[in-house]
Formats: sequence, C-alpha cells, structure tokens
Amino acid sequence: MTSNGTNRTLRLRQRPEGRIDDSTFELVEEPVPEIGPGEALVRTLYLSIDPTNRAWIGETPTYLPPVGIGEVMRAGGVGQVMASNTDKFAVGDLVSGLTGWQDYVVAGDSGIPFTRVPKELNVPPEMLVGLLGISGLTAWYGVERIGKPQEGETFFVSAAAGSVGSIAGQIAKIHGARVVGSAGTKEKCDWLIEELGFDGAVNRKDDHWRKQLKQACPDGIDVDFENVGGEMMEAVFAMLNVHARVVLCGLISSYNDNEPPPGPRSFGNLLVNRVHLQGFIILDFLPHSQEAAAQLVQWAMEGKLKDEHTVVEGLEKAPDAVNMLFDGDNKGKLMVRVADVPVAA
Amino acid sequence: MTSNGTNRTLRLRQRPEGRIDDSTFELVEEPVPEIGPGEALVRTLYLSIDPTNRAWIGETPTYLPPVGIGEVMRAGGVGQVMASNTDKFAVGDLVSGLTGWQDYVVAGDSGIPFTRVPKELNVPPEMLVGLLGISGLTAWYGVERIGKPQEGETFFVSAAAGSVGSIAGQIAKIHGARVVGSAGTKEKCDWLIEELGFDGAVNRKDDHWRKQLKQACPDGIDVDFENVGGEMMEAVFAMLNVHARVVLCGLISSYNDNEPPPGPRSFGNLLVNRVHLQGFIILDFLPHSQEAAAQLVQWAMEGKLKDEHTVVEGLEKAPDAVNMLFDGDNKGKLMVRVADVPVAA
Repeated sequence: MTSNGTNRTLRLRQRPEGRIDDSTFELVEEPVPEIGPGEALVRTLYLSIDPTNRAWIGETPTYLPPVGIGEVMRAGGVGQVMASNTDKFAVGDLVSGLTGWQDYVVAGDSGIPFTRVPKELNVPPEMLVGLLGISGLTAWYGVERIGKPQEGETFFVSAAAGSVGSIAGQIAKIHGARVVGSAGTKEKCDWLIEELGFDGAVNRKDDHWRKQLKQACPDGIDVDFENVGGEMMEAVFAMLNVHARVVLCGLISSYNDNEPPPGPRSFGNLLVNRVHLQGFIILDFLPHSQEAAAQLVQWAMEGKLKDEHTVVEGLEKAPDAVNMLFDGDNKGKLMVRVADVPVAA
Repeated sequence: MTSNGTNRTLRLRQRPEGRIDDSTFELVEEPVPEIGPGEALVRTLYLSIDPTNRAWIGETPTYLPPVGIGEVMRAGGVGQVMASNTDKFAVGDLVSGLTGWQDYVVAGDSGIPFTRVPKELNVPPEMLVGLLGISGLTAWYGVERIGKPQEGETFFVSAAAGSVGSIAGQIAKIHGARVVGSAGTKEKCDWLIEELGFDGAVNRKDDHWRKQLKQACPDGIDVDFENVGGEMMEAVFAMLNVHARVVLCGLISSYNDNEPPPGPRSFGNLLVNRVHLQGFIILDFLPHSQEAAAQLVQWAMEGKLKDEHTVVEGLEKAPDAVNMLFDGDNKGKLMVRVADVPVAA
C-alpha cells in the first residue's frame, strides 16, 4: 500500500523561545498505522502552513490546547484516502482536515474528523488548501460577515500578500471598495497593485510607511482586516472613520513573543468613532463553509479572484515553512507538498 | 420674567492641562436673551455632569468639535420654558437638551434643539437628567443592544457606582446575570452590594484589586460594560470568556491625559476568545429613546431599578462638579441644580 511502509511524523520536542529551530521538532519514522472498523487511512498530500501553527506550540492555550511535547504537530491539510473500512470514505477520495505533520493519518469515527471533498468539485488539491481551505473561508467570512465593505469605502488589509489577506483584498475589490494592503517588500507591494488590482500598498519595512499609509487612505479607513497587529495596527486604528469595522483575524506580529506586546495607544478611537470590532476564528463558522466555497469557486471561475500560492517541497521542510511565513517569504497561500498528485480513484 | 434679568454664563477661558481649575472658566453675566419668531426661552433647572464635559474642552475633537475659547460650556440639562413664540413649546413645559452652563438658553427652529418632555410622564426633573437622561439611555442601549447578558453569565461594569454604571448593573441583574462592579471606595463597593443588589464589587484603590476581581468573577467575564479603561480594563480583557462582549462606553481614566495611554496588553484575547467589541455613544441611538424610556420607567415603577443621584447646588459649582466626577465623589448620577423646582405651568 505504501512505498516503504513507514510513516514519517514530525513531533514536538520542545517549545521554541521565539522562532522555530532545529531543536523544536523531531522526525520520527513509524509504521503506517493500522485502521480499525469505521476508519480510513489518509495519505497527506498538502499541508496548510498557517500562523496558528506557531501559536499552537506556545505555552498558552489558544482556542485549542497547546500541542503536547512528543505529539505529532497539529496542522490542517488535504489528503487522499488509501484504504477504508467505512462508507463515509472511498479509496481515492480527497479529504480535508487536521492531517498533522505526517505522511499518514487515520480518519473516521474514532479518529480525527475529516471532510470528504465532493467529486463534482473538480479543483486541484492546491486550491483545496488555499482558496477553498481555511485561508479562503477565513477571508470570505471576515469580509462578508464582519467587514462588509461598501462601494467607495476604504478597506485596509494587513499582510495583504499573505494567504488570507490576498483573498480578503480581492473580495473587497469585488464589492467596489478602495483596497489598500500592507506587505513586507516593495516587490510584494507592486504585486498587490499590478497582479491583484489593489488601489494602494504600504511597505511596512519602508521608513516612510506612515506617510505611505496616509497617502494611500486619504479618506481614512472604513474596514481594517487585521492580520498582524503592532505599530501599523495602532496607526490604522487612529485612522478609523465613524462606524468603521475591525475584522480581528490575526496578530501575527506577536506570535513569536513570549510576553504580550503593548496594546494600541489609539484604542480610544474605537470609542470616539463607535467602531465595531469582532475577533473571529474560522472554526466557529465552519457551518458556512459550503456557502463560502460555492461563492469563492464562482468568483474564481469568473476570473474575479486569483488563487495565488507558494509551494514548499517535502514534509521535512514544514518547520522551515512556518518561519518563512513569519519572514513573509510567500505570496498567497503557503503550503507544503508532502506527496505527489493524487492517485486515481 | 426673571428675578434679576441677568443670564449667568460659564464660558471657556482656557483649555485645562489635566484637571479643571479656577482659570478654566469665566463667569460672565449677560442680559437674558431675547427670543425671535419660532423660538422659546428655556430656564435651566438641572445640568447633567458627564465625563464628556471634560473631553469637550480638550484640544482633540471628539464626536463633537471642541468647545471654543469664549463659548458657553456645552452641557446637557433639563429646563423649563419661560416664554414661547412657537407651537412646539408652551410656557411651563419641561424640556431636555444641550442647555449649556447658563441660566437661560434659546430653543427653537434657529436655536439649539430641545425635546419636550410629555406631561403624561409625571416624573421629577432629577429623573429626567438621571434615569431618563443620557446616562439611563446609555446604560439601557449598552446592556440591551450590545452586551445582552444572559441568565447566569458574569457581567462586569466599571465605575459601577456612577451614573451609567449603577443603572447598567441593575439592568443586567434584571436579566439574571451575576453582576460585579468596580468603584473607588470600600463604602461605594458596599453600597453596590447592599443597595443595588450587585453580586460582587472590586475596590480599584485597594492594593488587592486584582485578587478581588478574580474572586468576584470565578467563571471569567462574559460582558464588560467599560466606562473607565486603564489597568483594570486590561485585567478584565484578559478574563473575557469565549464570545464575550465589550460594551465600550467610556474611557474616563484617560480623559484628563494629554497623551493617549498605552493600549491594553491583553488586546490579543479579543482575538483568541472571539470577542465582540462595540464602541458607542448615545447620540447615535436617540431614535431608541422612547422605547428605552418606557422600559426604564416601568422597571423603576416596579421597584426593580433605583434612580440614584447626587445633587450639587448652584450653577457656579459646575466646574467643581466635573472634578468631583473624576474623583468619584458621587453615587449615581451627578447633577447640578441651577434653579428651583419648576414653576407651575
């Protein structure tokens, strides 16, 4: 059933101080797990690399408990069913769920829940991780249900070249907003404007980012789709207009810190301008997935939404990929290819 | 028509650094204003003393422009119509609106808008400033439309012995929440529990306030009705439960500062626990006033809601009264009596 009968797993060896390094994970080779009644064996194809991966290995519980020392690293991904003892999954099916950083995982009644990807949804597995994965659903929910940009409003999104930001900004454009994003290089800023159709971009590493932000948003900001936090969020909060919305989706600038950062000094503007702020994580809204996925696929087919992604090759590169994410070395969704294109069903 | 034909006005002489002092306002005696067609002359009975009074004389525009140097101090209040050239107001009517710090003000088409208090609403003018004034409406809107405490949830309100807090906490009790408030003295904390029926109280000036807060909220906090900001808000944010609500109503701890304070270090918990935060000011929601007032009067008549207030005598004491507010020297609504009980219509 497998080429060598082994399951490579990346297990948490010790919690990192700051960045992930060679001592954080351990590669352990194990036998491919056996499946029992009601279970299926899933082979990991692509892993989704997300800021939350870093948060999950900190000391502090997030919306899920921290990954335990010795446990397989928790991660979302897309896989293919290789063997099945359940009617829920057939051999060859594509499935998405928390595969973890490993070649094989057991899905089923007593295992980890997975969602079968309908065969009619004839899209490549990369799109299942990106546009139709956690990132795309997160962008859709945050823009459609919280930010609600109106025609002519100014929509700001931080980490705009990232997986969520690149989709969120494009959705806001579809609604006719003036869209401005931040990114970490001049080249990515140009890409936002030239490739994704953004109206403005701010290079957060440029000394003059404050001036760029003001120039890009001459009428203030009506929606902040916040992925980053830190100094630029503070500046953005100070520019929020009356009845602005903050989609609080991520605070990646602090995930490598062991101490919480100072809060935004401009917090008071949330009161003065009667701002609506909503923290959210997509796990709360998975019931909306079908509606979101249908809309996203339609926009993609109509050419209104580009599914951009950066692929890193090989399971063993997953820890490096998380660091790449924090260094901003990706455009669009960052993912790891673990196995070749799917086996025909 | 008046005892001495003069209108005492308190005009802004210079913007204070920090607290209001003797150099901030100037008492100017002027003739009682003449009224033109469509106008009415209103005699101020009670002035509402609110944190926003202090914010309005800072350099920074709030939701209204700063009061200009030389202008009569802006303030809400209740008055009585003394003369009228309009069908909208009859002599003897009670009216509420922005009277300002002065004995007389002109209401009408070309003047400052006032709302006539229906004669059927047979309540004392103090209640029009307190429970049925800005404070009561603010408390009602914040609890009913944003905080929405459910039976058994923990509802925290800062400045709980103040005008808004004392009403907000009582409304949350009506909904069956566990209600905990902060105040600045042991005596006020006792008053919250014994007189207003709160379940717990935290003395913000006690060295052990953090411990008191934890003990009073063993199951975390589901609603924060925030009037104060600062260190205790930071501690409260860290205790917010999943899907908690923050009613961002005031940040009085910073209104005397010339520089914005650091934001809350626990800001990240708004994301982790998917918190809904809404900044609001009651001026946005005046269309709800009638519904709110009807409900508040009913609760008061049923004995479920106590209308507590502290009265300071004399227009000239209004500046001191604002400082009293920041010192926390009031229980319930703080107001200034400018003139005697209403003249019979």
